[in-house]
Amino acid sequence: MNELEYIRSLTALHQGQPQSNILLGIGDDCAVIKKNGTQVSLLSMDSMVEGVHFDRRFHPPKLLGRKVVSVNVSDIAAMGGTPKCVLLSAGLPPGFEPDWMLAFNQGVHEACQTYHCSLIGGDTVASPGGFVFTITILGEMEEHTVLYRSGAQAGDTIFVSGQLGLAAAGLALLNADIAVDDPQFAAFIARHLDPEARIQLGQHLAASGLIHAMIDSSDGLATDLAHICTASELGAQIFAESIMPSDALRQAARLSGVDPLDWALRGGEDFELIFTAPPQAEAGLHQLARNCDLQIQAIGVMDREKGLRLVQQEAGRSHETVLAYQGYDHFRCQEKD
Amino acid sequence: MNELEYIRSLTALHQGQPQSNILLGIGDDCAVIKKNGTQVSLLSMDSMVEGVHFDRRFHPPKLLGRKVVSVNVSDIAAMGGTPKCVLLSAGLPPGFEPDWMLAFNQGVHEACQTYHCSLIGGDTVASPGGFVFTITILGEMEEHTVLYRSGAQAGDTIFVSGQLGLAAAGLALLNADIAVDDPQFAAFIARHLDPEARIQLGQHLAASGLIHAMIDSSDGLATDLAHICTASELGAQIFAESIMPSDALRQAARLSGVDPLDWALRGGEDFELIFTAPPQAEAGLHQLARNCDLQIQAIGVMDREKGLRLVQQEAGRSHETVLAYQGYDHFRCQEKD
Repeated sequence: MNELEYIRSLTALHQGQPQSNILLGIGDDCAVIKKNGTQVSLLSMDSMVEGVHFDRRFHPPKLLGRKVVSVNVSDIAAMGGTPKCVLLSAGLPPGFEPDWMLAFNQGVHEACQTYHCSLIGGDTVASPGGFVFTITILGEMEEHTVLYRSGAQAGDTIFVSGQLGLAAAGLALLNADIAVDDPQFAAFIARHLDPEARIQLGQHLAASGLIHAMIDSSDGLATDLAHICTASELGAQIFAESIMPSDALRQAARLSGVDPLDWALRGGEDFELIFTAPPQAEAGLHQLARNCDLQIQAIGVMDREKGLRLVQQEAGRSHETVLAYQGYDHFRCQEKD
Repeated sequence: MNELEYIRSLTALHQGQPQSNILLGIGDDCAVIKKNGTQVSLLSMDSMVEGVHFDRRFHPPKLLGRKVVSVNVSDIAAMGGTPKCVLLSAGLPPGFEPDWMLAFNQGVHEACQTYHCSLIGGDTVASPGGFVFTITILGEMEEHTVLYRSGAQAGDTIFVSGQLGLAAAGLALLNADIAVDDPQFAAFIARHLDPEARIQLGQHLAASGLIHAMIDSSDGLATDLAHICTASELGAQIFAESIMPSDALRQAARLSGVDPLDWALRGGEDFELIFTAPPQAEAGLHQLARNCDLQIQAIGVMDREKGLRLVQQEAGRSHETVLAYQGYDHFRCQEKD
């Protein structure tokens, strides 16, 4: 049983008659619940575990506090909504340093101010196995502008904001303790330690009415786009040349001994937005992104073929490679006989 | 820095200008947020950590799944509200048994059905240190009937539903592996393994307009009533004779080598309701509780003296003992020089 199978079994258990005011339960970046006349509430929850999602040896506590909020705000961004409130449950190991926690809490507070949301509750418990932080975020938006994973249509162009693979590069540089005095390397490291949720872009995309489906890049392009494919009952082509790593990313990959394309395809935690729209929307979308001081790029197309396929040009000919489901599958249960 | 000091520092950090639609943030069983015209949303979050809050050696997974939902529903009950949705974050240790998790999830599902709420999302992560479960619950109610901790008035009678100390007795019996074939002992054990949130009683109390303040007994009477005292800027007397343990509780205490009054005062996790009301409401409240198939008992009085005092009769004279803050303070940080 892997993470995907586990979540499927849980989802199956809780299907049935949902309450009429629940527009969507498990299965997207946020649950969507009717709030009042035209508005919905958005709810999402994310946990970060020491030794799994963060390493205290190089993660400054204030930046970690900011990150636990940002990754949850990113789920609101992926629907096109506005974050309002967060709850924080903190599991604290025996003998934790108060100064570390105070700096962490300062980071939580800063991020709440950045995203204009309020910490309204939570829990504090002992944790024998290291720090564990869980955030629940509540957001809101107009019901008719919510962007689900399931809305993609065949022929849609697939777009991504920013550049993929930066957070994976930053983590690799930190793990290998590679110190190169390069502002781009510093940007990769910052992307891992202190990512920024694309909240303004998400809101503008939702309000524009130009796009069909959206998700944030938390688990890597291959996995996140596969979620759009599954939810929309479609397949997709990704054009390898459109996600070609920059020179700095190639250099970081060389130093780390990995394939930079792998970072772009499978590196998680960039918290960029991946979305689909009809090809004719492209010019308008580029302008909309520039208004948010961001760039977007067309990286592929949704189609009716099965699965996710990487299209590469080699010696003047294009060939396709099927990308398997690449989850950020970091738990393992006992295999049964 | 203990748990109380930690939470105070966190609360101080996040005070300031809250959003106008947040009626209450940190500081009660639930946060209270305006939903629409007359209704509010209630939000609460509770974590349960293996080895701290539960012991897998004697906690059947299905009952544990029920319990993680019930303890969160109890926070909704403590405001007088109706639970609607839950989110579950599960931290799973390496090599976990799928059958154990499937039974746990079945318990979560059963409890959701019992309380008429829906699982709408969450997260699943690896946890190197054992199972960690965090639930966020969303409830709703009419704004004008919300029961806060801060509403108690001097002269109010203090009531409690059911009997206190049962869950602590059950846990002690389980820990000591004391097997006595006694239905009351079985009830104590059931109270620890599979507590029931007093959701119907809470709703009826809120709708009655008879009571002033409410909290659930999650951390023990002394601590929970101290929260009402602090929030209401009052003190309280507890009449020792009104919380006298039953014969069966005394017998369990004898077998466990503890003072049964200590269980009644400081045993947590009974998830009964503690509430205050003017003395003249007493008859009406007893009738209301009977309609919910429960009993309530008057156990003390709110007053303007400082602190929480236990009043005991000895040799025809009454004397008071001041009860110190008795938190369920199970974390410890490094003390600084």
